[in-house]
Amino acid sequence: MQMRAGYYTGDRTYEVREIPDREPEDDEVKIEVAWCGLCGTDIHKFEGKNGASPVIPPIILGHECSGIVTAVGPKVKYFKPGDRVAADPSYGCGKCSYCQQGLPNFCLERHGVAKGFSDYVYPPEQNVYKVSEKLDLKNAAFAEPLSCVIHGLDLIQIRSGSAVVIYGLGSIGSLMLQMVKLSGASVIIVVEREKEKQKLALELGADYAVDDKEIEKLAETFNIDYVIECIGLKATMEQSLKIAGKNARVLLFGLGDPDEPVSMNQFEAYTKELSIYTSYLNPNTTKRAVALLESRKLDTDAIISASLDLEEMGEELKTQKYAKKGKVMVRLTGKH
Amino acid sequence: MQMRAGYYTGDRTYEVREIPDREPEDDEVKIEVAWCGLCGTDIHKFEGKNGASPVIPPIILGHECSGIVTAVGPKVKYFKPGDRVAADPSYGCGKCSYCQQGLPNFCLERHGVAKGFSDYVYPPEQNVYKVSEKLDLKNAAFAEPLSCVIHGLDLIQIRSGSAVVIYGLGSIGSLMLQMVKLSGASVIIVVEREKEKQKLALELGADYAVDDKEIEKLAETFNIDYVIECIGLKATMEQSLKIAGKNARVLLFGLGDPDEPVSMNQFEAYTKELSIYTSYLNPNTTKRAVALLESRKLDTDAIISASLDLEEMGEELKTQKYAKKGKVMVRLTGKH
Amino acid sequence: MQMRAGYYTGDRTYEVREIPDREPEDDEVKIEVAWCGLCGTDIHKFEGKNGASPVIPPIILGHECSGIVTAVGPKVKYFKPGDRVAADPSYGCGKCSYCQQGLPNFCLERHGVAKGFSDYVYPPEQNVYKVSEKLDLKNAAFAEPLSCVIHGLDLIQIRSGSAVVIYGLGSIGSLMLQMVKLSGASVIIVVEREKEKQKLALELGADYAVDDKEIEKLAETFNIDYVIECIGLKATMEQSLKIAGKNARVLLFGLGDPDEPVSMNQFEAYTKELSIYTSYLNPNTTKRAVALLESRKLDTDAIISASLDLEEMGEELKTQKYAKKGKVMVRLTGKH
Amino acid sequence: MQMRAGYYTGDRTYEVREIPDREPEDDEVKIEVAWCGLCGTDIHKFEGKNGASPVIPPIILGHECSGIVTAVGPKVKYFKPGDRVAADPSYGCGKCSYCQQGLPNFCLERHGVAKGFSDYVYPPEQNVYKVSEKLDLKNAAFAEPLSCVIHGLDLIQIRSGSAVVIYGLGSIGSLMLQMVKLSGASVIIVVEREKEKQKLALELGADYAVDDKEIEKLAETFNIDYVIECIGLKATMEQSLKIAGKNARVLLFGLGDPDEPVSMNQFEAYTKELSIYTSYLNPNTTKRAVALLESRKLDTDAIISASLDLEEMGEELKTQKYAKKGKVMVRLTGKH
Ligand SMILES: NC(=O)c1ccc[n+]([C@@H]2O[C@H](COP(=O)([O-])OP(=O)(O)OC[C@H]3O[C@@H](n4cnc5c(N)ncnc54)[C@H](OP(=O)(O)O)[C@@H]3O)[C@@H](O)[C@H]2O)c1
Ligand SMILES: NC(=O)c1ccc[n+]([C@@H]2O[C@H](COP(=O)([O-])OP(=O)(O)OC[C@H]3O[C@@H](n4cnc5c(N)ncnc54)[C@H](OP(=O)(O)O)[C@@H]3O)[C@@H](O)[C@H]2O)c1
Ligand SMILES: NC(=O)c1ccc[n+]([C@@H]2O[C@H](COP(=O)([O-])OP(=O)(O)OC[C@H]3O[C@@H](n4cnc5c(N)ncnc54)[C@H](OP(=O)(O)O)[C@@H]3O)[C@@H](O)[C@H]2O)c1
Ligand SMILES: NC(=O)c1ccc[n+]([C@@H]2O[C@H](COP(=O)([O-])OP(=O)(O)OC[C@H]3O[C@@H](n4cnc5c(N)ncnc54)[C@H](OP(=O)(O)O)[C@@H]3O)[C@@H](O)[C@H]2O)c1
Ligand SMILES: [Zn+2]
Ligand SMILES: [Zn+2]
Ligand SMILES: [Zn+2]
Ligand SMILES: [Zn+2]
Repeated sequence: MQMRAGYYTGDRTYEVREIPDREPEDDEVKIEVAWCGLCGTDIHKFEGKNGASPVIPPIILGHECSGIVTAVGPKVKYFKPGDRVAADPSYGCGKCSYCQQGLPNFCLERHGVAKGFSDYVYPPEQNVYKVSEKLDLKNAAFAEPLSCVIHGLDLIQIRSGSAVVIYGLGSIGSLMLQMVKLSGASVIIVVEREKEKQKLALELGADYAVDDKEIEKLAETFNIDYVIECIGLKATMEQSLKIAGKNARVLLFGLGDPDEPVSMNQFEAYTKELSIYTSYLNPNTTKRAVALLESRKLDTDAIISASLDLEEMGEELKTQKYAKKGKVMVRLTGKH
Repeated sequence: MQMRAGYYTGDRTYEVREIPDREPEDDEVKIEVAWCGLCGTDIHKFEGKNGASPVIPPIILGHECSGIVTAVGPKVKYFKPGDRVAADPSYGCGKCSYCQQGLPNFCLERHGVAKGFSDYVYPPEQNVYKVSEKLDLKNAAFAEPLSCVIHGLDLIQIRSGSAVVIYGLGSIGSLMLQMVKLSGASVIIVVEREKEKQKLALELGADYAVDDKEIEKLAETFNIDYVIECIGLKATMEQSLKIAGKNARVLLFGLGDPDEPVSMNQFEAYTKELSIYTSYLNPNTTKRAVALLESRKLDTDAIISASLDLEEMGEELKTQKYAKKGKVMVRLTGKH
Repeated sequence: MQMRAGYYTGDRTYEVREIPDREPEDDEVKIEVAWCGLCGTDIHKFEGKNGASPVIPPIILGHECSGIVTAVGPKVKYFKPGDRVAADPSYGCGKCSYCQQGLPNFCLERHGVAKGFSDYVYPPEQNVYKVSEKLDLKNAAFAEPLSCVIHGLDLIQIRSGSAVVIYGLGSIGSLMLQMVKLSGASVIIVVEREKEKQKLALELGADYAVDDKEIEKLAETFNIDYVIECIGLKATMEQSLKIAGKNARVLLFGLGDPDEPVSMNQFEAYTKELSIYTSYLNPNTTKRAVALLESRKLDTDAIISASLDLEEMGEELKTQKYAKKGKVMVRLTGKH
Repeated sequence: MQMRAGYYTGDRTYEVREIPDREPEDDEVKIEVAWCGLCGTDIHKFEGKNGASPVIPPIILGHECSGIVTAVGPKVKYFKPGDRVAADPSYGCGKCSYCQQGLPNFCLERHGVAKGFSDYVYPPEQNVYKVSEKLDLKNAAFAEPLSCVIHGLDLIQIRSGSAVVIYGLGSIGSLMLQMVKLSGASVIIVVEREKEKQKLALELGADYAVDDKEIEKLAETFNIDYVIECIGLKATMEQSLKIAGKNARVLLFGLGDPDEPVSMNQFEAYTKELSIYTSYLNPNTTKRAVALLESRKLDTDAIISASLDLEEMGEELKTQKYAKKGKVMVRLTGKH
């Protein structure tokens, strides 16, 4: 059998190719993909930027997918055809020194096991999570980005009653905002330049939505206890350190450009006793992400800017017409 | 000048007496009380039960009050007449060995400094908290019980995506439920026998409301990650340990009868790696409680079962007609 | 080829049998066992008591072993013949819902993979840890009990400058004492009845060694911040709760008899804000245990009461002549 | 009566003046100073550099003192003449919004209350700590710097079995090293350029002592889990971020120059999931510092480079002859 797969083929080109389908081996779960989210990383790859690991085309894009199990390998124990599932793309080998310490995000063999821009994916069972009937498969595809957000928030442990600033209301910032709402924060401020996104921020539960000039004034009226940067720009990361108040924690969740180091006034940070965090992937948090999505306590629909077919993604990768507005969902079977 | 004060005078008797008013000294803030919540502890005192410290009547009842500043002592720095405030009744001396360690709830000199069943209270400035215009004074009187709830939840640090059981939907349980909703829990189950309170639980955000028989069955379908007991009965505390799942934390927030020890099967607890917490008062959490009340992210109105005058409290203390249904608010000036 | 294995054959009987040796498969590492520690669990099994899981003889005893790799399965990546290693007996499947959450101690498939009372063991690679030349293999066999102790201490997070009480100076208590010494405790008190063990306690770094009567008086002169029970008796577990001071944490590390529930005065616990912990196995801590043993910051030699041959273990299991005095090490090859 | 006090009088000048002695008021404790440590901050002031707050001469130097109580104010409760004590110089008012949150290091009224370069100091009771006979007063004067070190280590919570790098073996680094030894670290590396200090590092418990070139190579053989910078130079702070391993925490304890921002490659930090901490003063940690000093588990004598008279400090402040070698102790009464 043949299946489709959406490839980045190098030089800012995208192509849907027909490739052979196969049966699952060992503990692999064969999933007929329903939906796959488009992630900033996919765009980075398309634009030829290397991320954590170098990108050598052709590669299949996508890693935020959900679907229905169609077959299972002989060693699979917990899944059967018909199961509705979400996949965590990050494989941990279990045996390297980091995996042995319970740090699978640093796995020496770590690699992606669910390239979701394709009709089928074959992740090992350890990367697959059941999804209950309460949750439709389009929203289930948020499991991966949400699991990253959960990990980031685990690191900073927001105290209830705090004042929290979130920079950027892209798809990550939108999830972050909703999770911060569920953290007991008493004041939530979103920093965004676009009016439309400021409006969305208020709808999703922000108390204030301001731009990167207004925030400096606003930060004088509160002691900002937490800042969560979800953009990755030098300017906004440096501003995060500046507006952070006494005893504050700053989470630099957005990814900075390796060539543009962030400048930190350590003495100033000391007088506020700042602590600064980065967050790397999603170790052991996917099950919690699925549980939260199933609970319907987050409104992920509100973040989706478009639902496109696999064939439409070349255009979208070039123009980012919808990606600039929110989360783009790629329809494979499009099942619920 | 004279002022009224509601006394427990011994032998299950309550009396409103006229006593002399006075001016604030040193760093005392004189507050004209607007509202004072009735707490289970007040009822305990009325019924002759000793709490953490022995009760020697006559004593003025109440410790959950809000009001308006009318005068300040000569050393007061942060308040002036007209300020709308809430008071934390728990005084920490600052100099005993526990206060020196940042543990004012264990202060060797600890005593109540805001007996709110009276027209005026005189707490030292360190126990007074400003309340913004956003929050009316009746709801501001929840600052004390909420600050206790916040401290309890600080101890167990709920991970987002967890399944949480709350026992009892009295006024404490109702606050706890709303704070747990803001903790990122994915499943919240309230255990209550009364149908009406079960209904309230669902309205306030519980996913399930069951009685103490049904919970045992329900606990088989989830791994219960947290149990928060807000009743204080031997039976429900022991059941809390039983229904708790693998890796669970159990917070025994309700106060047990000293004569009815809780029985714990340590071996069974070990196979689940249970940890069991108690929570003592509200160290350093009042400011956060006020911030949360101001944010209007909690619905404290929904918990109030009656607003009564000081003179009506004798009857209420005897019958607990409204106290059994929710929070009773005592109206002093009744200002907003 | 044949190899020896020390069996519990039921009815308080021990037998060394010859069984066929085999080659390692898949990701198995074949280890020629050098030493294996005798654990209380082995004695429990010998005495017909069930632990966490029912015991159906005949079974090979032992689970705290070290040795030298002689062969590796075809999928093994990090080991080769000649490597000096210690084994963690607790297997986590990686794919059940607990393993997916990073909680391998609750693995639904968990089982022992290194029955060390035998000439060879075949654990999967994920359970094997390299041991540097700095550490001899007899002491390396402490990796498993030490990893359990580390996990228990992780749960209670001892603050430097604290007063800590440890109950019991068996082999677990002796490791606990040395780790508590490395926790920054300012006062360490060991509770033991035997004079000889009290003497050892002082040698290993305790500031006081008293019996279970004297401790009650001593606990009045300090605020005991942590109590770590390493015996498992109802009486000492209940005393632990009693002597614990304000703001204390109590770790019930010893395993209680399921038929003798511990009685807890919840109200008294509340006035001290006690928290009570149990500790289940050793999730992800073996690498740290090996690192600590390699650092030679612990004196494990001081805990060893005897080094016996596999054939001598029947006598020892019956009499517990040496087990009562400290750690018994079973010599397989006896290599260093 | 007259007493001596060692003043910084501006323009790199030091002068011992006679000033009037006085009686303690309210809750003040009058302490006849025995010893006072010289801190880097004193040198900074002498050199005209502003610290957290601007320096306006003339000011009395010193803030790390111990001594004997000679009189107490009328409201003092826990001290009497003859008590041997150490003083914490950092006053928290108890009533500002930070003190109310249990964050006295951010007190809006914070100021120094024990200027130890003088025959007498008069701190309020809340800043005074009893010292047992086990601890001589010269070593008791380490309470303040040690309490800062304890706070810094509280922030990063060293896991036992970790590899820890400490930069700088000045008096702070020497205390840090000894506390890290008591944290359960398995590998401790000190970075120092001076051979003599490298030797001291090994004596005080470091496993390796290397210079700032050698560390880069060494950091390739371990995953460095914690880096604690105790110098405050841009170069060593940036190197700290560089040598930190996967999942590492970096504590920038030394104070950086406000005019020399530290450059941080956020992307690189992200791939290691670094978190970066600063530590501000010593909130609520002095009692623990005294307990640790009393326990004699630290060797503070080894850090003292000279014991000088008040009159000799002008010379020392200019030359830093001994300050460069370790801790300089100023002898007031010099009592033990
Ligand atoms: N740590 C992790 O594990 C992890 C996981 C996933 C993603 N990330 C990172 O998280 C970041 C956000 O991802 P994303 O997918 O949400 O990206 P995105 O969709 O591009 O979102 C960025 C948002 O920031 C806004 N923005 C840009 N410049 C701004 C400025 N100066 N002031 C205010 N707002 C500004 C953008 O709005 P406009 O451009 O429309 O103004 C946009 O809404 C990325 O850096 C990504 O690499 C990290
Ligand atoms: N730790 C602290 O700092 C702190 C602070 C404040 C309060 N507390 C304690 O918290 C507890 C709750 O206080 P509260 O003011 O909320 O008391 P409350 O109003 O009496 O609430 C108890 C609730 O539990 C319900 N209940 C009683 N038995 C039950 C059972 N077997 N199964 C299910 N529900 C049952 C009651 O409902 P019905 O009786 O109507 O069925 C009631 O709604 C008290 O023990 C109090 O002392 C602790
Ligand atoms: N949580 C976990 O993961 C874990 C892991 C391993 C072990 N454990 C448990 O830890 C406990 C200790 O194990 P172990 O191997 O060290 O056992 P052990 O060798 O039997 O040690 C117990 C010690 O307690 C002393 N003791 C007994 N009764 C006493 C009393 N009333 N007062 C003071 N001391 C008393 C014993 O001394 P005498 O009898 O000579 O007086 C002995 O030294 C066991 O319960 C074991 O099951 C738990
Ligand atoms: N966060 C807080 O609460 C707090 C509290 C107290 C102090 N501090 C800060 O902690 C820092 C240390 O204080 P201190 O009193 O210990 O200062 P110090 O005595 O000057 O110690 C600094 C040490 O670093 C060494 N050093 C300098 N440059 C070096 C390099 N490139 N490589 C390796 N070693 C180098 C110095 O040795 P040589 O110069 O002899 O080579 C000296 O031993 C200061 O910045 C101080 O302000 C912070
Ligand atoms: Zn791995
Ligand atoms: Zn006190
Ligand atoms: Zn498993
Ligand atoms: Zn203050």
